[in-house]
Amino acid sequence: MNIFGVMTTHKFALAVHGGAGTILKESMTPELEIAYKEKLKDALDAGYNVLKSGGSSLDAVEIAVRVMEDSPLFNAGKGAVFTAEGKNEMDASIMNGKTLEAGAVAGVTNIKNPVSAARKVMEKSPHVMMTGKGAEKFAAEQKLELAEPEYFFDSLRWEQWQKIKDSEKIQLDHSEDKGDVKPSFDVEFNPNPDSKFGTVGAVAVDINGNLAAATSTGGMTNKKFGRIGDSPIIGAGCYANNKTCAVSCTGHGEYFIRSIVAYDISAMMEYKNISLQEAADIVVNKKLVDLGGQGTGGVIAIDAHGNIAMPFNSPGMYRGFVKENGEVEVFIYK
Amino acid sequence: MNIFGVMTTHKFALAVHGGAGTILKESMTPELEIAYKEKLKDALDAGYNVLKSGGSSLDAVEIAVRVMEDSPLFNAGKGAVFTAEGKNEMDASIMNGKTLEAGAVAGVTNIKNPVSAARKVMEKSPHVMMTGKGAEKFAAEQKLELAEPEYFFDSLRWEQWQKIKDSEKIQLDHSEDKGDVKPSFDVEFNPNPDSKFGTVGAVAVDINGNLAAATSTGGMTNKKFGRIGDSPIIGAGCYANNKTCAVSCTGHGEYFIRSIVAYDISAMMEYKNISLQEAADIVVNKKLVDLGGQGTGGVIAIDAHGNIAMPFNSPGMYRGFVKENGEVEVFIYK
Repeated sequence: MNIFGVMTTHKFALAVHGGAGTILKESMTPELEIAYKEKLKDALDAGYNVLKSGGSSLDAVEIAVRVMEDSPLFNAGKGAVFTAEGKNEMDASIMNGKTLEAGAVAGVTNIKNPVSAARKVMEKSPHVMMTGKGAEKFAAEQKLELAEPEYFFDSLRWEQWQKIKDSEKIQLDHSEDKGDVKPSFDVEFNPNPDSKFGTVGAVAVDINGNLAAATSTGGMTNKKFGRIGDSPIIGAGCYANNKTCAVSCTGHGEYFIRSIVAYDISAMMEYKNISLQEAADIVVNKKLVDLGGQGTGGVIAIDAHGNIAMPFNSPGMYRGFVKENGEVEVFIYK
Repeated sequence: MNIFGVMTTHKFALAVHGGAGTILKESMTPELEIAYKEKLKDALDAGYNVLKSGGSSLDAVEIAVRVMEDSPLFNAGKGAVFTAEGKNEMDASIMNGKTLEAGAVAGVTNIKNPVSAARKVMEKSPHVMMTGKGAEKFAAEQKLELAEPEYFFDSLRWEQWQKIKDSEKIQLDHSEDKGDVKPSFDVEFNPNPDSKFGTVGAVAVDINGNLAAATSTGGMTNKKFGRIGDSPIIGAGCYANNKTCAVSCTGHGEYFIRSIVAYDISAMMEYKNISLQEAADIVVNKKLVDLGGQGTGGVIAIDAHGNIAMPFNSPGMYRGFVKENGEVEVFIYK
């Protein structure tokens, strides 16, 4: 309501991503390109229907992420990559920009839609973050749909893992294996920096001007040691605040954690009074790049006016948005 | 070195905390008060000796935190509280302000000094955060000292757990159990907001002007579902950046995560150009308080000039600092 007691209707809008990285047109088939674009559209349509009927941005980002979790095309939910032990370990987070409430799960193996578990953590527990078997127990108590390992099994992901599991390599989702890339870390880990990150995410503003963000991932192929990336870390891979923006990230998680990427965009808007686009650009194309050359990835971000920014510093990022008129736009390359 | 090729020696300084919360003089014995103060001094002395001999702030914060982890007085390392399953699950983090490198472990049960595991994650792996059995495996491979459950067993912690384990309560370290406090969440969890948080931490600046921060905790008594608080979350419970400050937090972890407390202090200094004291005060005494009444706790923070801020919004916080002259000051109450 405004001061005249009249309901103020905000513009609503939604953006999604399905991961960033070395996504090159020459290594893509036309069929796969269409499949990715169609699934991004499905996710946007699902969220749009929620927003159009007056639903909340929280419901919109949750359903959009669920659509992508349910697709084997993305490294989240069904289609999650395999750890060094041949398991799928998934992370997800969600944040409510109106209340600054947040929820996250990390290292879960049997929850069909990790983003919905993150939402339950936010709404049905006093906690923000739950991990491993504890998080799974909570999800079961909350009657969330569980799934057997076979559900998450995807033959492409399995092949990716078979290919590298004996090499002690960690792969940041379906990477282009270029022999000329030098590992920048301890050879025991030998991560390939030239990769694609299949994390998914959504950000939205609803007709009440409330913002929300959600992020979900299967992490790195062949990851070890219970590694957690930025996706379930509030402030790193996911952040929402009605005062500023909602942000979902995809990229080399360690660099995104160290840079507190999602909150940094919000902080710059709030404290430096700069625009969403400017703040997102500085963080993704300057600060992450300056951190040492492996801070690859991107973000999707939205503000309360429905402005959308989608910068990325990698060759490609699966992404798209829909605004009030219902026109959906999706993109893959730069 | 400055532009004349002369070594510029910075002031060095160190601050530590041993937890914040309902620490009231009337419920403390003189003996216990002395014991806490002595142990804080031991931690400060250990770090001071490192800094005085030209050692790094990273070494100083690690050893200061280890001293407190080794004491049963604090809820970290030996003396960690018990989870709902009667286990000790510990979290720790560390960050290097010069390189913005960071490391963290969460939910570990058999590592004698979790802060040292966090440092190994930072220095010997490409990851920032490892959890559970994976983190323990990594620590073992790194030849860190492990410990049996008996080592962590402390009779006071055990009694605290026995007292509340059947009540489904979560207790934020050795709380004053006041019957008139209403749970603000789902009764299943019933957290007692009137509590003391025994998390420990240290922040330092060394003679080279490099900043570092470290945080270590045993979490909440009777915690369930693999809950993770702010202590191992870079940006929430721990942050360091030579450009601004180093921060270690203690308090109601969920509120600290949602507020990205440690990084927010840094962001305000950088983007609003305000002092360490002002930024820390705004975050602890205004933003956390405004978030809904349970954002209790405090921070210790230091900048590159050796300025120290130690605000807290709870009745007490175990804390202290030492500057170049070697004079140690420790405090408990407001």
